[in-house]
Amino acid sequence: MAPKYAPNLRSRLAPLLLFLQTGFIVICFSNINLKDSQLLGYPLSEFQDVNVMVVAGFGFLGTFLVRYGFSGSGFNLLVAVIATQWSIILNGYESWIQSRRILIDLKSLVFTNPVQLILIAILEVSGFILNGWLLQTFFEVKPLYCAMQLHTFGAFFGLMLTWVMRRKGSETPFEKEKMDHKTGLFSMFGTLFLWMFWASLNSILVDEGERKLRIILSTYLALAVSAVAAAAVSVFTSPRGRINLDHIQKCSLSGGVAIGVSMSLVHRPWVAMTIGLAAGVISTLSLRYLKGHMLLAFGCHDTCGVLSVHGLPGLLGWLAHLTLQINHMVDRTTAIRFAVFHICTLLITLSLSMSMGVITGLLVKWSFWRPPQDRKCFDDQAFWEVSNQHS
Amino acid sequence: MAPKYAPNLRSRLAPLLLFLQTGFIVICFSNINLKDSQLLGYPLSEFQDVNVMVVAGFGFLGTFLVRYGFSGSGFNLLVAVIATQWSIILNGYESWIQSRRILIDLKSLVFTNPVQLILIAILEVSGFILNGWLLQTFFEVKPLYCAMQLHTFGAFFGLMLTWVMRRKGSETPFEKEKMDHKTGLFSMFGTLFLWMFWASLNSILVDEGERKLRIILSTYLALAVSAVAAAAVSVFTSPRGRINLDHIQKCSLSGGVAIGVSMSLVHRPWVAMTIGLAAGVISTLSLRYLKGHMLLAFGCHDTCGVLSVHGLPGLLGWLAHLTLQINHMVDRTTAIRFAVFHICTLLITLSLSMSMGVITGLLVKWSFWRPPQDRKCFDDQAFWEVSNQHS
Amino acid sequence: MAPKYAPNLRSRLAPLLLFLQTGFIVICFSNINLKDSQLLGYPLSEFQDVNVMVVAGFGFLGTFLVRYGFSGSGFNLLVAVIATQWSIILNGYESWIQSRRILIDLKSLVFTNPVQLILIAILEVSGFILNGWLLQTFFEVKPLYCAMQLHTFGAFFGLMLTWVMRRKGSETPFEKEKMDHKTGLFSMFGTLFLWMFWASLNSILVDEGERKLRIILSTYLALAVSAVAAAAVSVFTSPRGRINLDHIQKCSLSGGVAIGVSMSLVHRPWVAMTIGLAAGVISTLSLRYLKGHMLLAFGCHDTCGVLSVHGLPGLLGWLAHLTLQINHMVDRTTAIRFAVFHICTLLITLSLSMSMGVITGLLVKWSFWRPPQDRKCFDDQAFWEVSNQHS
Repeated sequence: MAPKYAPNLRSRLAPLLLFLQTGFIVICFSNINLKDSQLLGYPLSEFQDVNVMVVAGFGFLGTFLVRYGFSGSGFNLLVAVIATQWSIILNGYESWIQSRRILIDLKSLVFTNPVQLILIAILEVSGFILNGWLLQTFFEVKPLYCAMQLHTFGAFFGLMLTWVMRRKGSETPFEKEKMDHKTGLFSMFGTLFLWMFWASLNSILVDEGERKLRIILSTYLALAVSAVAAAAVSVFTSPRGRINLDHIQKCSLSGGVAIGVSMSLVHRPWVAMTIGLAAGVISTLSLRYLKGHMLLAFGCHDTCGVLSVHGLPGLLGWLAHLTLQINHMVDRTTAIRFAVFHICTLLITLSLSMSMGVITGLLVKWSFWRPPQDRKCFDDQAFWEVSNQHS
Repeated sequence: MAPKYAPNLRSRLAPLLLFLQTGFIVICFSNINLKDSQLLGYPLSEFQDVNVMVVAGFGFLGTFLVRYGFSGSGFNLLVAVIATQWSIILNGYESWIQSRRILIDLKSLVFTNPVQLILIAILEVSGFILNGWLLQTFFEVKPLYCAMQLHTFGAFFGLMLTWVMRRKGSETPFEKEKMDHKTGLFSMFGTLFLWMFWASLNSILVDEGERKLRIILSTYLALAVSAVAAAAVSVFTSPRGRINLDHIQKCSLSGGVAIGVSMSLVHRPWVAMTIGLAAGVISTLSLRYLKGHMLLAFGCHDTCGVLSVHGLPGLLGWLAHLTLQINHMVDRTTAIRFAVFHICTLLITLSLSMSMGVITGLLVKWSFWRPPQDRKCFDDQAFWEVSNQHS
Repeated sequence: MAPKYAPNLRSRLAPLLLFLQTGFIVICFSNINLKDSQLLGYPLSEFQDVNVMVVAGFGFLGTFLVRYGFSGSGFNLLVAVIATQWSIILNGYESWIQSRRILIDLKSLVFTNPVQLILIAILEVSGFILNGWLLQTFFEVKPLYCAMQLHTFGAFFGLMLTWVMRRKGSETPFEKEKMDHKTGLFSMFGTLFLWMFWASLNSILVDEGERKLRIILSTYLALAVSAVAAAAVSVFTSPRGRINLDHIQKCSLSGGVAIGVSMSLVHRPWVAMTIGLAAGVISTLSLRYLKGHMLLAFGCHDTCGVLSVHGLPGLLGWLAHLTLQINHMVDRTTAIRFAVFHICTLLITLSLSMSMGVITGLLVKWSFWRPPQDRKCFDDQAFWEVSNQHS
């Protein structure tokens, strides 16, 4: 029983994929050589850790919706490989492994079919690389700090995109926007893989042994404390005193986001733990209370809680970075100068991500791409040959 | 439909978590600096292997009960991060990575709510570190051997705890103490991750390259043979000649436990394989026949088969260690002296673990902590916001 | 309710396992010492990556059938450990880690009970090692290339085996030969783990840093492009424009197979991407159209699509290797000589694998081993204690 009005992907997705893929090959053919030497110092095991996060972690994190598991994990793989190839080309192979992390927030998009997802991936990757280039060229910001802006960039890009793409009737959750007991476990699997390898993600851009170790320990501690804080706040704000699995799955990761932005200045364990605690509390409170308001007030379907998990903890990390930096300075003038500079980098990232989000949203909304109807949102049947599958 | 008498976690869990977490941060603030240099030689990939075992391996091993998957994986994470922080503080960062393994047997506890679980974690970690300190200080036992006592310590600690916490009516399995086809697969996932990374776990305390490699090979062989033995014994003792998934999942790991205690003396493959074979046979027989008797005779709900998987194979490894050591000795007097010494270390570990288990049991049983009723045991609904979850 | 005619494994499986295991221990006892030094250069993290592929990747890839998950993951572990021990003995420990990859295609067998599976494992491992020995001794083929023949060897071995074992009524798919939404996700988990670690698998036989890195990048690109190609072709050939999960899960891996055979000559990214594109297209087309014909015409139950995923991409890789090699040669005579030599190695591998497959098939078909009836194919209940499992 095929749903009558489900979009037929054949005339759009297949040509787009083949066109992009052929284009990538042609560009590579004419321009790109493997700059092996750039990567020689980079150990395989760390590459694999990030690979596990992108492919298995985010892939399974996206399986929590009861009828959307195939799409969650399958489209994640597709978007990941397209976006990676695009960023390899944009960066000319020089920083491709770092850039793989650009994908992080693509998981949050709704109202889209796979054709749209791929457009979004292309535009978001371009925007993020442009942002890094702006910050590094005009503000002489360090690459590590630029890379860590990806949580903030991705979250606000995604939020604006979702807001632009809102439709009539999108103020309420959809019929199929829920989890069951088994999909909750699949999703827990994704969370745990992200949680475990987050320390590798944060440490991957740093070469020096001792600094690397400090970052691994700080990240572990921040994640540990934010998991505890998420559980505590979730129980505390529940009328019947129960834990919400969704809070544990998402807010346990918020410590890793917040510490990521500020880690270059975190030298003692208690600082990492405090940042983790604040991130866990803010993120859980926002997921419990703010998310529903966003839906009602703006029609913003933030299905994965991107604002709570990446947006607010990213801002918190920015604030922690500012505070720690100023704290080290004796001279008031230098401190004020630094603060102004630091605020500017944030404003640039925010305005670029939000305007790119709006532009992408308008482009993607264009009916040429045949977005799915409300009834079909979060339903695998719209895109996958599911029933009576003989393999 | 909230179950009427389910305990409300709000007034106990949230304050306890926040109190502990704040306490940890305060202790860290006043005392602890990162002793980075201690860990510099320790590769990230091995840290990650153990991390995968603790978080994903045990997390998913605990999902086999049909209605207890959220609790199995969620509480495992919570307990792991609390116990890790506590052992970091107790060890003053010096051996924190090794101590992470302390959590191993916490998975076995029943009749507990999350509040109780956290108390148990704190007490078990303290007891195990005390045990290691006693053995190292008064008996000059090597740290590697001490660390390997954790299976024995954890198993008997857990068993005594469960025994103290038995209640009227606990002689029979509970209504929800069973698995179905899908939760069996989730649990298989946990087993396989433990099985795969066990070689890393056993080799992690050894620095020297050649010795490390020998331990990896021995562990792999012992695990392989115990998987074969578990399947063979499971089929052989089944009236209809079928394999029991539970036996494969648990007893395939027994070879890793047994070789762990004795590995420093295992120099040839056939020794490792024989130890694995014996561990697989003993562990499967005990799970098939002994477990039911324990339940009937003592009311001991050993849901995860801790006695069969960690207790008996741990004792077997101890015996193998003794035999291999005596075998190398020419002089009878030295052999007898060593045997007496070796028996003493076991007795200390056993008595400390069992008495700590009893004390912890009495403390945890205290009704202040609001243990769940029988009817609610192994049911996620008691602790998690499950129904109609819109995320 | 035990199915009336399900085979009782007790009198066959348990003695076979115990006999083999005791035999392995005795052989090890009399002959084998750990040649540690051989492996010292081999990093633990790469060993673990391959371990993850064999145990978790293939284990879960085999869980897609709706009622066959326990068998898929459980028997995979059993077969893996038996085959690994056997290949350790055959290779005298010298190349045991490479040989572990031999197991790859065992997953494809149907109509078999676990007793038969173990016989097949033993014979296939022996045949593959014989093949490598022949190629290396008489043709002076490099070990790396020999190892990469395993996809071709395994696929045609398996196909002939399945063909020999066909029975009346096997022209149609079986009642239980299908997937559902949750088993599809478990299987996706296996696919993703294979996909992620395939770069480690291909690079593991190479020592030199720069060459290793080139292979990792080539493998990643080939896999990425074959995933895109699989999605595009799957949508394009679907009447309703939907993606088939089965195609994504299997054909996304075909790039890794094809690049594996040819990688020693791939020096530029666009070559790797083109090979991946061709592999993805051929493999998806073959899975969509050829598989059904094979079933109808030959009664060949290629449940896992071994021909499409390993057989044809393996041949494609062989062709790419030939083309790339000849392309480098200026002299026509040398080129023709090389082509003849290259065709010979393929013919030897094909004829050895197919004849071993036929012999194994005849041996395994022997009714002494009590194969399951059609009705029981792909049903866990035939071999596992499933119902009312109290653990």
